Amino acid sequence: MKIKPLGDRVVIKKVEPEEKTKSGIVLPNSAKEQPQMAEVLEVGPGGMVEGKEVTMEVKKGDRVIFSKYAGNEVKLDGEEYTILKQSDILAIVE
Amino acid sequence: MKIKPLGDRVVIKKVEPEEKTKSGIVLPNSAKEQPQMAEVLEVGPGGMVEGKEVTMEVKKGDRVIFSKYAGNEVKLDGEEYTILKQSDILAIVE
Amino acid sequence: MKIKPLGDRVVIKKVEPEEKTKSGIVLPNSAKEQPQMAEVLEVGPGGMVEGKEVTMEVKKGDRVIFSKYAGNEVKLDGEEYTILKQSDILAIVE
Amino acid sequence: MKIKPLGDRVVIKKVEPEEKTKSGIVLPNSAKEQPQMAEVLEVGPGGMVEGKEVTMEVKKGDRVIFSKYAGNEVKLDGEEYTILKQSDILAIVE
Amino acid sequence: MKIKPLGDRVVIKKVEPEEKTKSGIVLPNSAKEQPQMAEVLEVGPGGMVEGKEVTMEVKKGDRVIFSKYAGNEVKLDGEEYTILKQSDILAIVE
Amino acid sequence: MKIKPLGDRVVIKKVEPEEKTKSGIVLPNSAKEQPQMAEVLEVGPGGMVEGKEVTMEVKKGDRVIFSKYAGNEVKLDGEEYTILKQSDILAIVE
Amino acid sequence: MKIKPLGDRVVIKKVEPEEKTKSGIVLPNSAKEQPQMAEVLEVGPGGMVEGKEVTMEVKKGDRVIFSKYAGNEVKLDGEEYTILKQSDILAIVE
Repeated sequence: MKIKPLGDRVVIKKVEPEEKTKSGIVLPNSAKEQPQMAEVLEVGPGGMVEGKEVTMEVKKGDRVIFSKYAGNEVKLDGEEYTILKQSDILAIVE
Repeated sequence: MKIKPLGDRVVIKKVEPEEKTKSGIVLPNSAKEQPQMAEVLEVGPGGMVEGKEVTMEVKKGDRVIFSKYAGNEVKLDGEEYTILKQSDILAIVE
Repeated sequence: MKIKPLGDRVVIKKVEPEEKTKSGIVLPNSAKEQPQMAEVLEVGPGGMVEGKEVTMEVKKGDRVIFSKYAGNEVKLDGEEYTILKQSDILAIVE
Repeated sequence: MKIKPLGDRVVIKKVEPEEKTKSGIVLPNSAKEQPQMAEVLEVGPGGMVEGKEVTMEVKKGDRVIFSKYAGNEVKLDGEEYTILKQSDILAIVE
Repeated sequence: MKIKPLGDRVVIKKVEPEEKTKSGIVLPNSAKEQPQMAEVLEVGPGGMVEGKEVTMEVKKGDRVIFSKYAGNEVKLDGEEYTILKQSDILAIVE
Repeated sequence: MKIKPLGDRVVIKKVEPEEKTKSGIVLPNSAKEQPQMAEVLEVGPGGMVEGKEVTMEVKKGDRVIFSKYAGNEVKLDGEEYTILKQSDILAIVE
Repeated sequence: MKIKPLGDRVVIKKVEPEEKTKSGIVLPNSAKEQPQMAEVLEVGPGGMVEGKEVTMEVKKGDRVIFSKYAGNEVKLDGEEYTILKQSDILAIVE
């Protein structure tokens, strides 16, 4: 089974805390909206989205930082994913 | 009787929990807006919607994940449907 | 006397509950905004509405489902009508 | 003295309740925003209004239904008028 | 000293109540936003304002009705003025 | 050290109360948002700002009236400045 | 490891208080949103962002003043960074 996001949406899988330690990324506790790291699994086609031309800048396999409270969670075959708009992805981590 | 959605609206029928188990999709309980699975029954014509050109990306028979609180519910011939805008559909599941 | 709606507005007359039973449409009670069935009586000319080109997709006599809390009610010659924008009409029922 | 509305604004004079009875229009009491009948006295020039081209569809002498809470009231030579945008006029009654 | 308003702003001086009585304008007390009469003292150049082309329709010396709570007040050489956008002026009174 | 504002931003220095008395400007106490006088120190380049073409209308040395609660304050070399968008400047005082 | 911001986003590193003293910049305590100084580490490509053409005006190494509550914080290899949109950067300090 496969999730094909529509428009400028992206399917990502959160990178777990233990993996964060490995990569050296630590996300601080603060009153601010906290970003999180994830891996991109599926990328929508982009194109005209709500009257605006969107080019997809992320691709499958990218490590990204996204806004924690953005998007919708879904569980598929026992794994949790997040579907969010590309504009809720802050940066690619290389 | 048939429901013909206007503009970029789509008529969907929710996929019941027992069917979810079959497909392996489990939707988590969380404070976030929960998406749900549904089947697309009718698709509006798209075109100019509130001044923006919309191309319909879903088609009859598609399995989709949509935002649970989006759209309006209607019961027709004893069955419940949801009418929502295509932009409230997050992804197609294949 | 006749009501001629302006721009993208439409005059509709709600279809009463007894008629709903005949047609098989039942509208569920829920916390969500409830849609209702109505018949289209008058259709505005469309055209440029708040800077956007609107094409009227409904016509006199159409049976439509609309969002219950949309629009304004008016009583004319003892009958109640609702004047709403076409974008508050969800679907045509055939 | 004369009021010349700017842009897409219109000056209207409410039609009093006794006149409503004559015309057969009765406005229901409800939790919804209630529309009212009025006569159009002055019509702005239309044209570019907040970056959008507006064509005036109402003219002096038109009987119109408008949203009761829209616009501003002003008293001139002892009579009360309402100045509102054409988009707050719902329909012309003929 | 002179105030030159920017963009689509206009400097006006409120017409005092005693003058209102002379002109026959009386502004009603109501729960609605109350308009007031004023004289236009300075008019901004118009042109592109927040991405929209604005043509100034009022000129120095015009008597105007404006929305009471719009704009900012400033005292200059002992006199109070209001600086507001032309779109907050409802009508010219002739 | 020099502050170079981005886009349509402007750096201004508030004109102190004693100077206001000299110029005859007195700003009233009221429930409304109070404007204040300031001198323009630095002007951003303008151009495309959030998709809109902005032409800078103020220049270094201009005396301006601005909305008191607009912008951000910053202290540089012991002096306080305000950085705000040109659209928060109401007028130039000559 | 490197953070590549998307669209019109910028990665900045806050300049610590002791460094502020050196540069003479002191940020006042007030009820207003407080700006802060930072150094630009990474700059997104700009281009079409939410339907608007954005040209990046800041570059790596720039000292900037930004709105304190803007953006998202992230810790990378033990250091804290902020990812924000260029439009939340108020000025470059030279």
